[in-house]
Amino acid sequence: MTDLTGKIVLGSNQYGKAENRVVRIYRDSPRHEIHDINVSSALRGNFSPAHLVGDQSNVLPTDTQKQTAYAYAKTKGLLHLESYGLDLARHYVDDVEPVDGARIELEEYAWARAVIDGVEHDHTWTRKGEEIRTSAVTVEGKGDAQRTWVISGFKEMVILKSTGSEFHGFLEDDLTVLEPTTDRVMATSLTAQWRYTTTDVEWDAVYEGVKAAMIERFANLQSLALQQTLYAMGEAVLEKYPFIAEISMSAPNKHHFLYDLGRFDIENNLEVFNADDRPYGLIQATVEREDAPDAGSAWRTYSVVG
Amino acid sequence: MTDLTGKIVLGSNQYGKAENRVVRIYRDSPRHEIHDINVSSALRGNFSPAHLVGDQSNVLPTDTQKQTAYAYAKTKGLLHLESYGLDLARHYVDDVEPVDGARIELEEYAWARAVIDGVEHDHTWTRKGEEIRTSAVTVEGKGDAQRTWVISGFKEMVILKSTGSEFHGFLEDDLTVLEPTTDRVMATSLTAQWRYTTTDVEWDAVYEGVKAAMIERFANLQSLALQQTLYAMGEAVLEKYPFIAEISMSAPNKHHFLYDLGRFDIENNLEVFNADDRPYGLIQATVEREDAPDAGSAWRTYSVVG
Amino acid sequence: MTDLTGKIVLGSNQYGKAENRVVRIYRDSPRHEIHDINVSSALRGNFSPAHLVGDQSNVLPTDTQKQTAYAYAKTKGLLHLESYGLDLARHYVDDVEPVDGARIELEEYAWARAVIDGVEHDHTWTRKGEEIRTSAVTVEGKGDAQRTWVISGFKEMVILKSTGSEFHGFLEDDLTVLEPTTDRVMATSLTAQWRYTTTDVEWDAVYEGVKAAMIERFANLQSLALQQTLYAMGEAVLEKYPFIAEISMSAPNKHHFLYDLGRFDIENNLEVFNADDRPYGLIQATVEREDAPDAGSAWRTYSVVG
Amino acid sequence: MTDLTGKIVLGSNQYGKAENRVVRIYRDSPRHEIHDINVSSALRGNFSPAHLVGDQSNVLPTDTQKQTAYAYAKTKGLLHLESYGLDLARHYVDDVEPVDGARIELEEYAWARAVIDGVEHDHTWTRKGEEIRTSAVTVEGKGDAQRTWVISGFKEMVILKSTGSEFHGFLEDDLTVLEPTTDRVMATSLTAQWRYTTTDVEWDAVYEGVKAAMIERFANLQSLALQQTLYAMGEAVLEKYPFIAEISMSAPNKHHFLYDLGRFDIENNLEVFNADDRPYGLIQATVEREDAPDAGSAWRTYSVVG
Repeated sequence: MTDLTGKIVLGSNQYGKAENRVVRIYRDSPRHEIHDINVSSALRGNFSPAHLVGDQSNVLPTDTQKQTAYAYAKTKGLLHLESYGLDLARHYVDDVEPVDGARIELEEYAWARAVIDGVEHDHTWTRKGEEIRTSAVTVEGKGDAQRTWVISGFKEMVILKSTGSEFHGFLEDDLTVLEPTTDRVMATSLTAQWRYTTTDVEWDAVYEGVKAAMIERFANLQSLALQQTLYAMGEAVLEKYPFIAEISMSAPNKHHFLYDLGRFDIENNLEVFNADDRPYGLIQATVEREDAPDAGSAWRTYSVVG
Repeated sequence: MTDLTGKIVLGSNQYGKAENRVVRIYRDSPRHEIHDINVSSALRGNFSPAHLVGDQSNVLPTDTQKQTAYAYAKTKGLLHLESYGLDLARHYVDDVEPVDGARIELEEYAWARAVIDGVEHDHTWTRKGEEIRTSAVTVEGKGDAQRTWVISGFKEMVILKSTGSEFHGFLEDDLTVLEPTTDRVMATSLTAQWRYTTTDVEWDAVYEGVKAAMIERFANLQSLALQQTLYAMGEAVLEKYPFIAEISMSAPNKHHFLYDLGRFDIENNLEVFNADDRPYGLIQATVEREDAPDAGSAWRTYSVVG
Repeated sequence: MTDLTGKIVLGSNQYGKAENRVVRIYRDSPRHEIHDINVSSALRGNFSPAHLVGDQSNVLPTDTQKQTAYAYAKTKGLLHLESYGLDLARHYVDDVEPVDGARIELEEYAWARAVIDGVEHDHTWTRKGEEIRTSAVTVEGKGDAQRTWVISGFKEMVILKSTGSEFHGFLEDDLTVLEPTTDRVMATSLTAQWRYTTTDVEWDAVYEGVKAAMIERFANLQSLALQQTLYAMGEAVLEKYPFIAEISMSAPNKHHFLYDLGRFDIENNLEVFNADDRPYGLIQATVEREDAPDAGSAWRTYSVVG
Repeated sequence: MTDLTGKIVLGSNQYGKAENRVVRIYRDSPRHEIHDINVSSALRGNFSPAHLVGDQSNVLPTDTQKQTAYAYAKTKGLLHLESYGLDLARHYVDDVEPVDGARIELEEYAWARAVIDGVEHDHTWTRKGEEIRTSAVTVEGKGDAQRTWVISGFKEMVILKSTGSEFHGFLEDDLTVLEPTTDRVMATSLTAQWRYTTTDVEWDAVYEGVKAAMIERFANLQSLALQQTLYAMGEAVLEKYPFIAEISMSAPNKHHFLYDLGRFDIENNLEVFNADDRPYGLIQATVEREDAPDAGSAWRTYSVVG
């Protein structure tokens, strides 16, 4: 029997202000600094009255969360996604009574100083399109029971190698027509998120170090599958930084199909490709340490229901 | 001490073919039928050899998953997202030895028959832009141990009411400047997903029934907050269908700000609004039954790492 | 010799405020009405001082154009894109001394009343995704010399027929490998814009009439090429409305490729297709009357440089 | 009288294959080179039979244009957008009898070599997101009457200065509420296209030179208005390259609004901004030489109807 008769109740829930586009300029000297971010906050706690009877007395408005995001960019500063996210998350849990947990999700868009006649300009930048740096900070509980998780990462890091990638020896069934290959173009738009065991981190240096370790593995490992490449990239990060507990990666296989020029008697020795849009392979994997502390709410996201 | 020394190992992982754009035409009579979908498959199982040493012998290529999506649209048929998804998921778990679990995520784009001189055309349609129907089917385990979860839903259902919405009595702190209101425009682009307790469902009729119940509550309930409206919408669905265990909703508050015309001595009695893009409130809630069976892997998504 | 020595001068130029998202609610009775638009204005005139020496004395700020868009939605009303656009364009040319010409470009997003138990709701709507209605109004010159052009149109009207389309007998060269066909799926996302010879038009009725005439031709004409179909659609519009001077259409051929299931011994009798993204055929054509008045600045767009 | 009675005829028209995503790898040495482009072709000529009676005998299929784009990437090479575009355009006009004119529009996505331990990698790149390089090549006429136009450009170059920008002294009317300012953030996502008087150009060097000249002006000129900045940027390009006839620019004013923190007694000395989405100012201008040769079909675009 699949019909249910139990009481209907409120399940998990949260609310917040998404996609505040905060730009912070530091202008203490003629050489300005810029931080350009997108920040979303979500609050968790006992908001049953708001849901069940429309009583807002426990609800700090999402408009107030917007004001706070902008105000904290000045009063607390905005130097690193992670530290700014921690300031916001701790504020909501510590200072707003009905709030039991806060989740701050952040993106940063990088800018490069304009270089004019070989000299970096003091207050002009062009936006670097490369990968988008991300962070997700979660704080739960009051006082001594408070727990904190920090995730850093990036998305949309598009990387390609024009040789050094194979794919063969795979399982076949009646509908398998793919040809094995010992040389192909491999490309992906990589999303990665790693979880720290501590908040005492040199955020920017570690970010650059993680990225460098991953790119090195992608470039230099002879790939037998995107799965193998991803695992090696994650492994390199964990070997380099013992205070990273795990790293999760999502890698769409951006297919570059060798274009069939043979029917025109034109040789195509891995030179001309069609960069296809859809469908695409999608490989996802986590690499972790066996002694990693419990992830708790670290991966409980802001934007997904459930 | 936050440094870890444990062995580095593979964590959760999956792989598949995302965004196969399958269009199925039924042309058994002059009055054709069309189903236009986007389907993604992900396989789970023991793929450690692929990750650790690049051994693909357990890996059914994502290209084969593409072939299967198109082939099954003919051999099994594509009448409902849910039944087609079940066919695919069961195939991977039942027929491919290394596969322990399969997740199929689907979207359907609706078409309306062209109406010419009051008559519906047999083989011409225009695409309805409205909401996108979705489903997520998960099958785990072989033989008698097999478990199955079906989620149905929609996304991008944009709905607006021009009165019947209030927001006041909220918590205030030092950064709260929002004015309370007893009449406002309320609009959202709603995502909803509900979990069935059975696979013996009239998929299309229930889909329409869920949508109708939700729209009725949105329209007729005097809203004291988007939270209250969402809860009532979910409650209406569970009251109507005892074989739905829970429903999760994500509702961006698409702010329509009353435009300040008073500075020009022009009255604006809730008549002229700016439809703003960002930031936006984001309210998320699940409504469930206390006797709902365990969700198991039902909500373990395809596209998110973790 | 291709080096130039002439004086460097300012060429064509314009400036304005783009993408004002104005929502206008009519609430004179319990049965509200809604108009949801995106409006952009551009002003033309002698703005050389602003460009050459930074003198803004002739420049009405783009912020003022924003205020005007919202204010006019109340004071002049927003019932039809075309009449509201005319009000704005005439205002800039008539009332702002340095302005010689004004271009207003508009989009409208359609909403459908929520239907609850068979009854249309007074103040709740869901957004219809279908095509986006557009208009472009241009006014040039002061007083008796003033000229006015009105274009109406739509974009993103996605239309598909599952039979009744052929393509064969085409020109072939050494790189031609396409197979001719006498039955295929034909689909497009149609953009159309038609130019009126008058401003005395029942804007909404004609809009619906144009759309109906075009859909009828797409559906009922046996197509030998998308070119032929487009011409017939345009011809039908001009035959129906003698006060339309010309109609321009842009039609991406949204390819639905018959999926090759034959290699699996599965018959595919025009039943299973891959809806491909890129590349796509793109067919563009104008149908006009030989005695159409000069188009003047009617097609001089807002968003394109030149 | 605005009703027309003239004959209905075909107006301007063209057709082609849009958005071929061609990737060309040069692998003649271990240090590979990559070119990653999006190319669209459009053919013009006497295609009346295709439109009027569905006769395709003059119509080279868009599928053939796709094959040609990929084949030429090998046989002619793909080193510069402009030279590859010229090869394609000339081929269609010279070799396909019914074709009178060809328009090739191109985009290039830049990649940067991965740098590993300070050394550039031979065959691994990450995608630079910065601006997208563009070109538009038009060839018209057979034999001695043939004319050729080459435009180069870029789009989505996002550039910002955190000081050195003013805006005051503007025209005011009853709806003007903007406050004048002597210091603000100015940012834009610049599109620029310049027309050459010759095809004998060092395409890559000039591209870099144009960009450098424009960025220098943006950075170093004290701005009194975006109009003034644009004009100065265009002027710098024409002064540097006497074989450039004109340059057209389109610059959305990406507003960075100073966030009002004063109501919280927090000083905000041009430090915290909201990066708003819509609406936005849009400034467009062409800078040209008085002795520039006629632009002919240079600016007749591929994608716009008319």
